[in-house]
Amino acid sequence: KKVKQTTYGNRGMTLEEDLNITNKYYRDHEIALIHKKPTPLQIVNVEYPKRSAAKITEAYFKKPSTTDYNGVYKGKYIDFEAKETQNKTALPMQNFHDHQIEHMRQVKQHNGIAFIIVKFSNVNEVYFLDSEFLLQYWWEQINGGRKSIPKEVFENKGYLIKNSYRPRLDYIQIIDKIYL
Amino acid sequence: KKVKQTTYGNRGMTLEEDLNITNKYYRDHEIALIHKKPTPLQIVNVEYPKRSAAKITEAYFKKPSTTDYNGVYKGKYIDFEAKETQNKTALPMQNFHDHQIEHMRQVKQHNGIAFIIVKFSNVNEVYFLDSEFLLQYWWEQINGGRKSIPKEVFENKGYLIKNSYRPRLDYIQIIDKIYL
Ligand SMILES: [Mg+2]
Ligand SMILES: [Mg+2]
Repeated sequence: KKVKQTTYGNRGMTLEEDLNITNKYYRDHEIALIHKKPTPLQIVNVEYPKRSAAKITEAYFKKPSTTDYNGVYKGKYIDFEAKETQNKTALPMQNFHDHQIEHMRQVKQHNGIAFIIVKFSNVNEVYFLDSEFLLQYWWEQINGGRKSIPKEVFENKGYLIKNSYRPRLDYIQIIDKIYL
Repeated sequence: KKVKQTTYGNRGMTLEEDLNITNKYYRDHEIALIHKKPTPLQIVNVEYPKRSAAKITEAYFKKPSTTDYNGVYKGKYIDFEAKETQNKTALPMQNFHDHQIEHMRQVKQHNGIAFIIVKFSNVNEVYFLDSEFLLQYWWEQINGGRKSIPKEVFENKGYLIKNSYRPRLDYIQIIDKIYL
């Protein structure tokens, strides 16, 4: 894997890259232990060539049954999903699968900390929003309501995560403030 | 995926199958929320056929950087690795990668609950052992000590998880007893 040259506040970085760098920072500095889960695949065929590694020759992407990131901070279970949108005014609900929503509902029920981190790419703003709001809008959508979460919800009920040098997206700071 | 016919106490079930069924039971009964992580793969090539799903045509298995299972129980972060051995007297340390050991060390450091579930297949016995003992034996091995954890350690310092109908391997009961 090539190491990309990055500059501070680089707009070219994806949210996932920023979060992976942030999580590595948290791990290296023993602040929190949070990993991105591997992408779930349905493996259909594997070849076992002599004297070399098993080679998967047919596989398909599966819909994830959980969120992308989880881990532990001060003994607490942390769970979140990250989404990036080009939309300027709202986050379309189609960014989520039923399974992910249900998973977050269950995390809350078991007293875990569940939230989403959403990047509005056009304005380069990243927000932290407790999953409570996602669940509420999901529920409304099912009952014929709007099919997206307005950006104002992120601005008023969520928290802007400022880009910084290290850690790049310091979301743990927000966890400290609102849950602990 | 075919649904296998299973009978109570079936010796033909793998530990992983038993744990997946147990975790599903915990989820369905809202006892705990614990999932097996997807197998990490290095994807090298993907084809995008018209009108059908993206097909991965070349991928390789990667060494996992974490353990297999994690989740939340009563707000607490739970993390474990499951291993099955044919060995009658000990669990060889070669069953673990450096990364997994380091991951469990970090989980403990962040006050998460970390343990291993080990099945001695020959006698069909499944044990729960806190990761403290694994870390201790790992450390001794690095310093020239024995390369396995004796079965007596599981018997004396761990907990036998009895096979039952539902849940199949009730390890949460042990968590309740020893950590909470
Ligand atoms: Mg995602
Ligand atoms: Mg394993």
